Amino acid sequence: MGADSVKDFNDYRQKMNERILDAPNNKVIKRIFNVDTHAYMEGALDVKTKELMGLVASMVLKCDDCIYYHLEKCHEEGVTTDELMEVFGIANLVGGTIVIPHTRRALEFWDELKENQQ
Amino acid sequence: MGADSVKDFNDYRQKMNERILDAPNNKVIKRIFNVDTHAYMEGALDVKTKELMGLVASMVLKCDDCIYYHLEKCHEEGVTTDELMEVFGIANLVGGTIVIPHTRRALEFWDELKENQQ
Amino acid sequence: MGADSVKDFNDYRQKMNERILDAPNNKVIKRIFNVDTHAYMEGALDVKTKELMGLVASMVLKCDDCIYYHLEKCHEEGVTTDELMEVFGIANLVGGTIVIPHTRRALEFWDELKENQQ
Amino acid sequence: MGADSVKDFNDYRQKMNERILDAPNNKVIKRIFNVDTHAYMEGALDVKTKELMGLVASMVLKCDDCIYYHLEKCHEEGVTTDELMEVFGIANLVGGTIVIPHTRRALEFWDELKENQQ
Amino acid sequence: MGADSVKDFNDYRQKMNERILDAPNNKVIKRIFNVDTHAYMEGALDVKTKELMGLVASMVLKCDDCIYYHLEKCHEEGVTTDELMEVFGIANLVGGTIVIPHTRRALEFWDELKENQQ
Amino acid sequence: MGADSVKDFNDYRQKMNERILDAPNNKVIKRIFNVDTHAYMEGALDVKTKELMGLVASMVLKCDDCIYYHLEKCHEEGVTTDELMEVFGIANLVGGTIVIPHTRRALEFWDELKENQQ
Repeated sequence: MGADSVKDFNDYRQKMNERILDAPNNKVIKRIFNVDTHAYMEGALDVKTKELMGLVASMVLKCDDCIYYHLEKCHEEGVTTDELMEVFGIANLVGGTIVIPHTRRALEFWDELKENQQ
Repeated sequence: MGADSVKDFNDYRQKMNERILDAPNNKVIKRIFNVDTHAYMEGALDVKTKELMGLVASMVLKCDDCIYYHLEKCHEEGVTTDELMEVFGIANLVGGTIVIPHTRRALEFWDELKENQQ
Repeated sequence: MGADSVKDFNDYRQKMNERILDAPNNKVIKRIFNVDTHAYMEGALDVKTKELMGLVASMVLKCDDCIYYHLEKCHEEGVTTDELMEVFGIANLVGGTIVIPHTRRALEFWDELKENQQ
Repeated sequence: MGADSVKDFNDYRQKMNERILDAPNNKVIKRIFNVDTHAYMEGALDVKTKELMGLVASMVLKCDDCIYYHLEKCHEEGVTTDELMEVFGIANLVGGTIVIPHTRRALEFWDELKENQQ
Repeated sequence: MGADSVKDFNDYRQKMNERILDAPNNKVIKRIFNVDTHAYMEGALDVKTKELMGLVASMVLKCDDCIYYHLEKCHEEGVTTDELMEVFGIANLVGGTIVIPHTRRALEFWDELKENQQ
Repeated sequence: MGADSVKDFNDYRQKMNERILDAPNNKVIKRIFNVDTHAYMEGALDVKTKELMGLVASMVLKCDDCIYYHLEKCHEEGVTTDELMEVFGIANLVGGTIVIPHTRRALEFWDELKENQQ
């Protein structure tokens, strides 16, 4: 019920992404993965803004694994806890209180990201 | 895949809610928590009716933790298993068969609530 | 962008429901319609409580036509505007601010139901 | 509240798709459009099966314009009304009764497709 | 099927928001409206970033009226069409091709906002 | 975070479905279960096509347990991995990248189904 650990999340994600990329007849999925990489690259908007948008979209769509992924990216981009809390505010407001359980797991995952960094 | 135990659910929920309320810059989230408390208080509609509505909304939005929370409240309000089954009926009808897995976990959680009471 | 009028909504709904019931090979849909009728009948819970639950579920799932349908039923069951506003409160809280546009149309439709009654 | 007419739907869709493809800095959207074209092409599964899948996915996600689009493709692929009704059955079962209003509009749009053909 | 005009959207939105604020027993809704105002104010993140997040959340949740509202705010904050197209890219990628019809209407609404400005 | 094992999934599913069918006052749920059985039976469309539709609907609605269920049925119907990958492609395209985590678990579950068969 709590958040996955950062390491477990990354290990499983990497293992199964490789499995998908090894699978036969995976052209459509592969191209979606490619577009995904490009969508978050620096453009008219910077990477940090895009990752914040990816995070808020993942929260209102209630996708824990997507939230963990964008939390890691936000952490790499130097997002502060003060900034993160405002993302959580908007996500819970727009998406409603059903986002609260995901917020609990998101904050637990974020806390581990901050600890690992030290 | 099964339901969380009542104790595990409550412990994690309380721990992380406290973590959120201790976090910096959490004004928006805090105010949402406050409105949440008021929305389910006795008013033109009684608490039991409101908790039934909270439960059905959580089921069609497929939020297990929200379902567990409202099941506890429904239990406190004296909702019977006969009444609960009619909520499950409406939730599965309006929300579709994707609500069935949540219904399985909801009934397991409910059974534990009934056992703990004895 | 505003609410449909009560008459337009009912006329279209009836015309197309008849069209569906006249269509060939419609057994599954027909049975879903049947279960739908039974789910909201008096049982362990009364009709009014069930219609309130149908309304809140329709609001968080953002289905205008379902909202209009349950508003009519709530109106028939003697739901007051004071009670309705508490349903709106819970729906907007659980489902988030994306429920606001549906609330605007719901209140406009409700106002017309009240006027027609006079 | 009823279905858009086939002609209005196609005209608006074409006009705005061209507007999107003329817009500056539209690389990500363009690539999604490209993948979209490929995903529904004959492969291990035939076009008809893929269009049926596109239709059922659009129905449970309650996207009228997506439903109209796939209805046209299904019509081109020779899907019969008997087959269509079974798609409607599965969509309303998995997605719940909130799919009913979309089913009403879908059948109206389908009826127009059949008439235009004569 | 196309976008509402900017004026029609704003007129209806204002009329019905006033109707909601005049309604009896509206405390919960009123407080949600209040939190909504605060969530998008300058804080650790600036207003523009927050409006971009509000827009992307509205797109993946497929709420046209919410999209129009945040488009107006983005326009006031000086968001460029180049930036907007990247928001559309992320929304269509995360939320899937069911976001395309909303993107068509969003771009039509945006074009009108740009024209009105001249 | 990974997929449930096939055995654990089936055991829990069977245990709790029996619990639901033993519960008092479960008429509506029972009838939904019945319609569910009929909807996927051979008709104008064959069982395999219907199971593919059930799978894609479950994926875009992000219901892991529903995905596992339809994967088993697809496996029984002789769906190939090449065909499955095209379902995954359409589901991720229509439903967006939030479907990716469910695709990872789906492929892991599928791999186990293939192994068990040997």
